Amino acid sequence: MDSIKLSHHLKSNKVKIDDGFWNKIISLVQREVIPYQYKALCDKVEGAEKSHSIENFIKAAKIKSVIEAGGQVPVYPVDKWFYDEQNSDSNAFKGWVFQDSDVYKWLEAVGYSLSIKQNDNLKKKADEIIEAVCSAQLENGYLDTLYIINDRSKIFTNLKDFHELYCFGHLAEAAVAYYNGTGEKRLLEAACKFADLICETFNESNLKGYPGHEIAELALIKLYRETGKKQYLDTAEFFITQRGKAPYYYDIETGRSTDGRDYIYNQAHKEPRLQDEAVGHAVRGVYLYTGMAELAGEINNDELLSACKKIWNNIVTKKLYITGGIGSTADGEAFSFDYDLPNDLAYCETCASVGLIFFARSMNELDSNSVYADIAEKALYNCVLAGMAEDGKSFFYVNPLEVLPEASRRDSRKKHVKPVRQKWFSCACCPPNLARLICSLSEYIYTENDNTVFINQLIGNYAEADKCSLHLKSDYTKSGHIDIEITNIKTDKLKIAVRMPNYCENAKANMCYSYADGYMYFDITEECIITVDFEIKPQIIKCSNRVRENCGKVAVTRGPFVYALEEVDNGSNLQMLTLDAEKPLIYNEANGTITASGYREAPDEELYKAYSPASKEKTDLTFIPYCKWGNRGENEMEVYIRLEK
Amino acid sequence: MDSIKLSHHLKSNKVKIDDGFWNKIISLVQREVIPYQYKALCDKVEGAEKSHSIENFIKAAKIKSVIEAGGQVPVYPVDKWFYDEQNSDSNAFKGWVFQDSDVYKWLEAVGYSLSIKQNDNLKKKADEIIEAVCSAQLENGYLDTLYIINDRSKIFTNLKDFHELYCFGHLAEAAVAYYNGTGEKRLLEAACKFADLICETFNESNLKGYPGHEIAELALIKLYRETGKKQYLDTAEFFITQRGKAPYYYDIETGRSTDGRDYIYNQAHKEPRLQDEAVGHAVRGVYLYTGMAELAGEINNDELLSACKKIWNNIVTKKLYITGGIGSTADGEAFSFDYDLPNDLAYCETCASVGLIFFARSMNELDSNSVYADIAEKALYNCVLAGMAEDGKSFFYVNPLEVLPEASRRDSRKKHVKPVRQKWFSCACCPPNLARLICSLSEYIYTENDNTVFINQLIGNYAEADKCSLHLKSDYTKSGHIDIEITNIKTDKLKIAVRMPNYCENAKANMCYSYADGYMYFDITEECIITVDFEIKPQIIKCSNRVRENCGKVAVTRGPFVYALEEVDNGSNLQMLTLDAEKPLIYNEANGTITASGYREAPDEELYKAYSPASKEKTDLTFIPYCKWGNRGENEMEVYIRLEK
Repeated sequence: MDSIKLSHHLKSNKVKIDDGFWNKIISLVQREVIPYQYKALCDKVEGAEKSHSIENFIKAAKIKSVIEAGGQVPVYPVDKWFYDEQNSDSNAFKGWVFQDSDVYKWLEAVGYSLSIKQNDNLKKKADEIIEAVCSAQLENGYLDTLYIINDRSKIFTNLKDFHELYCFGHLAEAAVAYYNGTGEKRLLEAACKFADLICETFNESNLKGYPGHEIAELALIKLYRETGKKQYLDTAEFFITQRGKAPYYYDIETGRSTDGRDYIYNQAHKEPRLQDEAVGHAVRGVYLYTGMAELAGEINNDELLSACKKIWNNIVTKKLYITGGIGSTADGEAFSFDYDLPNDLAYCETCASVGLIFFARSMNELDSNSVYADIAEKALYNCVLAGMAEDGKSFFYVNPLEVLPEASRRDSRKKHVKPVRQKWFSCACCPPNLARLICSLSEYIYTENDNTVFINQLIGNYAEADKCSLHLKSDYTKSGHIDIEITNIKTDKLKIAVRMPNYCENAKANMCYSYADGYMYFDITEECIITVDFEIKPQIIKCSNRVRENCGKVAVTRGPFVYALEEVDNGSNLQMLTLDAEKPLIYNEANGTITASGYREAPDEELYKAYSPASKEKTDLTFIPYCKWGNRGENEMEVYIRLEK
Repeated sequence: MDSIKLSHHLKSNKVKIDDGFWNKIISLVQREVIPYQYKALCDKVEGAEKSHSIENFIKAAKIKSVIEAGGQVPVYPVDKWFYDEQNSDSNAFKGWVFQDSDVYKWLEAVGYSLSIKQNDNLKKKADEIIEAVCSAQLENGYLDTLYIINDRSKIFTNLKDFHELYCFGHLAEAAVAYYNGTGEKRLLEAACKFADLICETFNESNLKGYPGHEIAELALIKLYRETGKKQYLDTAEFFITQRGKAPYYYDIETGRSTDGRDYIYNQAHKEPRLQDEAVGHAVRGVYLYTGMAELAGEINNDELLSACKKIWNNIVTKKLYITGGIGSTADGEAFSFDYDLPNDLAYCETCASVGLIFFARSMNELDSNSVYADIAEKALYNCVLAGMAEDGKSFFYVNPLEVLPEASRRDSRKKHVKPVRQKWFSCACCPPNLARLICSLSEYIYTENDNTVFINQLIGNYAEADKCSLHLKSDYTKSGHIDIEITNIKTDKLKIAVRMPNYCENAKANMCYSYADGYMYFDITEECIITVDFEIKPQIIKCSNRVRENCGKVAVTRGPFVYALEEVDNGSNLQMLTLDAEKPLIYNEANGTITASGYREAPDEELYKAYSPASKEKTDLTFIPYCKWGNRGENEMEVYIRLEK
């Protein structure tokens, strides 16, 4: 059987980003986000809620020493998701049940950051933290501070709700990134030791459980690739195969008898290979789907690939916001039903879009079609980038498409929708997730197979592929122009496949190409420079009228960017504005805004009255890229605008 | 100081409804709803959740006998809103903390029903229930089965959350209605005995508390009017004066220190006389506001009247659905902020619109302006009537303006929105509230003062006002034609003031009239028949563009009825339909529907694509009265439709 894996992505040690748009953002993450998060993890941010993250590792290390010295250690309850300062013993675990993962995500970002640019001071801090992490690891490899500190006897007894395997997954991801970025093995060894324990614990003849919050699946595969230890792949497969099988493991664990529907939230209502719809907690979902796709590639499982394709199609044709956001409902931070994409109630967690980008890349390796990178681009340039303020100091967890600040304050249904970015979150999953993605962005540009190098993201960089060297000079986000210099060619069958963005109606190249599955294929016989000009212009986009909220409305985009209206540019009551689609949309190169023609309706003072056409006046509309909204104080924002009649 | 009360309403013993539209509905309530509710109260409905209502009174009576015999009685917790069968001792109280009120609301409906038409069998059942109620009353007058059964020592210790004073209020309302309908004093005496205890318990020098769920205020005033006992009025005033005063009684009760914002839900965040916005739980709100208006009239308090007017204006200009529904959010079944009127997430509890009709009548007595009856009409013919199925056998608690059955099933944010009426509710407040309103509808037709009889609702009837007799023949809902025969005139200054509905652009009368504050004033010098023809025609109504959800959309009405589109008539995906406002709307007299011209867009199969005008085809649209929706199985419904461009 041929491998169903058609290509592999180039890793960060092979690709160095140099891009007018992204250099600044990556530097911002390195300069602001990583140091700030370090302080947060160490509880050194004045006025911020304490993270307790490092403190928990130190407490766990102490418990470990006492145990190893044969001493008695206390027991505290392991019975909830959040352990606050007030209501528990000061020696007990503090913070969220997944608090450890914040440390790991930070270490992962640092690993990638160091592979971009060495930084001794940062590495020293990271090494100290790694020391603290490793000091907490039990002799048998177990490493989760909640259980180590509070109750060793409860380890692996609540897989459904608690996060030991989730924290393990982030540990493994961090370990691989840190090893790749620094060559240091300390954390990788700790991750393997924990992985070994997990492999021993979970299998056909022992515990038949699987993670409540997925990520261990994809992380075990990463660890397998890094170490070659087959048991890691086997355990990833075990987790994915066991998941959702009746009798449900979570039934056994909780002593209940259900029909599995209770586990939709965890995507454990049926076997992954039989799933065809994205459901439940969106972040969990895309982490599982990524793991499924990775596993399908590793073990050549067509059934799993087919399930992944169905789920992917379900997301992108029925459950995806125009911004690349996913997860329409705050209740369970979850996918909703098909075409349920409310703008104002959207959840669209930053982490979920980060995970969607993971899933897209994994699918892209199995299917050389540009749809995956198209969607990844949409998520990256819109929902994910919107997650961080322009100064890198505050973050959105939730990325709505319509915001009325009064609603966020006064309507409890919208309490998750913040009109301004927050400094930090007690549940701080999104900022470090964003940091690790941005610092590893170089890994999302290329996939490569025997003869073809695929350029999936049009981001400027220098790369060493297996078959050639590339220097991509990109003015993509501004003019749509890119130059790809190909040197050091190692095969006479080389093809360079450049993704033609799906919104792009025209592209001009300086060389002949054939077009297939969204890519422009160039046959390369000698060193050369490919020049492509993608037509990038403001566009008016219509959302399907199956989405009830957007009927009669449109959105404005340009290139990869979705645009939005803000009150600061357009006045309040944005819903009273309409867009005249007959008039041209003008892109303002100086500041990246788009000016359009439209109308402003006069406010109706009566709540109800006999219909007559609205009285209105012409007005210019100013659109800004969605990713930049909320950087000028609290104000109204909307992506969709009514079309003028 | 002159009384600020300008008129009083005619009570049910003075008005007999005889109306082509309403006779059937009143009969339906008498024939179906009242007997069904009796069975429910007695736990005799097969397959339905048990009510435990009568059972609780029987248990309480036993406890009472044991106490009076000097015996020991058990103690059970009084710590939650709902006491289920499984998790508590079978001798303990069962059901909701306000379970007693279901019995009282039924008795109130029966009282009104018997005043419409004597029914020995029904009266016998009611008398038996009254016997059960009275048997449970403690020697000191206390009567709330939760506390009598579970824990006598906790009486009046949790006014904020529990419902003793609420149940008392319904007892008093039932007692007055039953006395008026039958002349029987048994229940009235019990209510007075409990009222006497409440008056003793709550006052300046004793307990300074007030009801968490308002209604006792208006009920005490009813009891005062019936008995002339001033202490009832004083205690109503005490409750309203104490409410929301700092230090907050609920702070004292709960041992906390707050700034009062926690009590917005209970409208106890500030003193009623200082309130100017409708906030919190909508039913509680309108019950309080009704009590405030009633009190203002009784004690000539202009400040309270002014607060009532501000709150009224806030509701009707900023927080009212076109259907007369109030309460935009399911969270707290509450008012939301100004202009927040989502169609699909609406709560619009049937009870809240019933309470709005109470408030409207109380205001109408203080201000002879037709706005109150206009709004009452809107609520009555739309939100309230929609609450009951056409066969009187199932009910809506929540009355949304847009329903997609899949959303109700799959979107937890809409789990309160039922696509079909339910047989009964474990929290069964709405069906009996609707029953008592419909059976007392005769009390909402007239107000009268020294010289003027105001006809507020254009419902056919025979009435004995103080100054004349009236026979109103009404074809109002069909043709807009009414005849008012005036006989037995007792003053030479008689005026008949007929409300001209606010939607009505033209009205023709057979006699001269002057117009003021929404009424047509006829000077009557001799027996005569006034004939009025209101122009009733299909209208297209625009909701203010301050309501974001309805921009670009319109609703269709005719006379008092708001119309709606249903899937069964118009196909699925109602959001793809548009209305051509240039074409005429045709009223179909035979079945009450309206036919309009519009378009059906072809479904967009792509989730996002470059905008081009929708491909669409002409179609006829069928609108039905909103109050009739959901009578033909589960299907989509919407009130607002996009205007064709």
